[in-house]
Amino acid sequence: MNILGIDVGGTSIKGSIVSEKGEMNEKFVYPINKNENQEECMQSLFKVIDEYLSKQLVKIDGIGIGIPGTVDTKKGMVTYSNNLKWKDLKIVEFFEKHYKLPVKITNDANAAALGEAKFGAGKSYHDIVMITLGTGVGGGIVINDQLFEGNEGKGAELGHTTLVLDGLPCSCGRNGCFEQYASATALIRQTKEAIEQNPKSVLANMCTDESMIAKTVFEAARKDCPVANAVINQYIHYLSEGLLNICNVFRPQAIVLSGGISKEGKYLTDKIDQYLAKFAYGYPYSPKVEILISQLGYNSGIIGAASLLISQK
Amino acid sequence: MNILGIDVGGTSIKGSIVSEKGEMNEKFVYPINKNENQEECMQSLFKVIDEYLSKQLVKIDGIGIGIPGTVDTKKGMVTYSNNLKWKDLKIVEFFEKHYKLPVKITNDANAAALGEAKFGAGKSYHDIVMITLGTGVGGGIVINDQLFEGNEGKGAELGHTTLVLDGLPCSCGRNGCFEQYASATALIRQTKEAIEQNPKSVLANMCTDESMIAKTVFEAARKDCPVANAVINQYIHYLSEGLLNICNVFRPQAIVLSGGISKEGKYLTDKIDQYLAKFAYGYPYSPKVEILISQLGYNSGIIGAASLLISQK
Repeated sequence: MNILGIDVGGTSIKGSIVSEKGEMNEKFVYPINKNENQEECMQSLFKVIDEYLSKQLVKIDGIGIGIPGTVDTKKGMVTYSNNLKWKDLKIVEFFEKHYKLPVKITNDANAAALGEAKFGAGKSYHDIVMITLGTGVGGGIVINDQLFEGNEGKGAELGHTTLVLDGLPCSCGRNGCFEQYASATALIRQTKEAIEQNPKSVLANMCTDESMIAKTVFEAARKDCPVANAVINQYIHYLSEGLLNICNVFRPQAIVLSGGISKEGKYLTDKIDQYLAKFAYGYPYSPKVEILISQLGYNSGIIGAASLLISQK
Repeated sequence: MNILGIDVGGTSIKGSIVSEKGEMNEKFVYPINKNENQEECMQSLFKVIDEYLSKQLVKIDGIGIGIPGTVDTKKGMVTYSNNLKWKDLKIVEFFEKHYKLPVKITNDANAAALGEAKFGAGKSYHDIVMITLGTGVGGGIVINDQLFEGNEGKGAELGHTTLVLDGLPCSCGRNGCFEQYASATALIRQTKEAIEQNPKSVLANMCTDESMIAKTVFEAARKDCPVANAVINQYIHYLSEGLLNICNVFRPQAIVLSGGISKEGKYLTDKIDQYLAKFAYGYPYSPKVEILISQLGYNSGIIGAASLLISQK
């Protein structure tokens, strides 16, 4: 069995044939033309895919697509995607008509979670939650090797749960969402505030490149800059409290972290482990929840989207 | 098919034969003797059940038990039950040896949720979350007509998720748990604080019975006492923020409320509905989550425990 996995991003659409063992083939990349409307974009994309498929040695048996935004998995529709300006796009119908093959969709965070669960960091487990620490905080939930998405595929918005009642306003309309405290964007804001208050700190001196702030604050903390340490400790507090909530609600076997921040690896997971241990994983007498770093990296979206049609692990 | 459903409480153990349609028979009640150790308690309980069963016209095909505290569903053990002082009690083994029948256990909140999902307020739905607003805040999650309990049955602790970072200390060891703001206990505390600050209010005058405070504050609010209104509005804020978290994570078809506070019925659910609608159920373009009041009342524990062995709906 071979499935075409497609990962729709904000600026480009990537894809590859993925084997039933989760192995990727050669990739195609289609840079989105923002001047095209959504139907035109579909037609352009089909041309790119048709050409790609004509060069491949294997035939595909189905297509899985991961999409940023709100997706109605039941109706096979993109309800709304802010970056792409797609609205009520019947994407499954478009693809099924063109390819005469089974097509499944989910949102990008869910796709990534399924990919990691089946073929990445979570492959030894049956129940995992994936948290992506990037521009926002994305969530994906895998229960009993299956994606749990909620009614119409509109659950699993783990980044949009209140952590700080009446806290910072969030793009979703609520206040104090987990995302506002634990995303890479949040860490950058927290670091900038610390630099403003401590302009002569090691951290301030190290932060010369605006685009590298999230990475630099970890570096400064490793160099024992007390200002950076305070930022990181507070960030770990926010992040771990959100992860403890996930432990208490899902009690998964593992939580897989992905996104920019997750590149800090063991330094990050050690700090989280220490925090979680203090609270006996949030509830007494409860089994350990492993904190892992994603293994598929940028390919988790493609492999995960294909996984929607791969039943075996 | 007939199943014996058993609901273990803090002071007594109740049970009844439940039909596959969720209909209860005559009940038995066994008042717990706190002087007995856990093994002695099992033997006394067996005597009561044996006598009860000998008087019934139908035979049972299995036994389901709901237990307060931490339960290891995999090992069939009560890991720890604070009220009962049960610890590492192999309750499934005890029952299977005595009755030679299949036995399943879960914690009491999960049992109640399953009962409501199969035979109560949630019977028209496949995915519901039940929240019990009592001494604490209990949670039960039913996905695709099945109980979701997390690893070892130690998830679904929805009351123990942080709503107010670094907020009020909770019995679970964390701070700012949902339970500390939305339980009946919390509402009583919030009301007492308001009375202290407003000793001449209608609310203060109405609260003559210490044991009726949670009910009285709702009554005073219905009579338009501004102090009571402020308490209720703040309580609805806490409760609804917690429910919005559940909407965003599970996007269930319905949330069923039970416990003392849920007796306020439509007055309560109208206020919650209004709050949720403001946030488009916590995330744009998402399907409505119905807020319902439990229908099985105090029997949900017995019916729910029996439901562990009833596959049909």
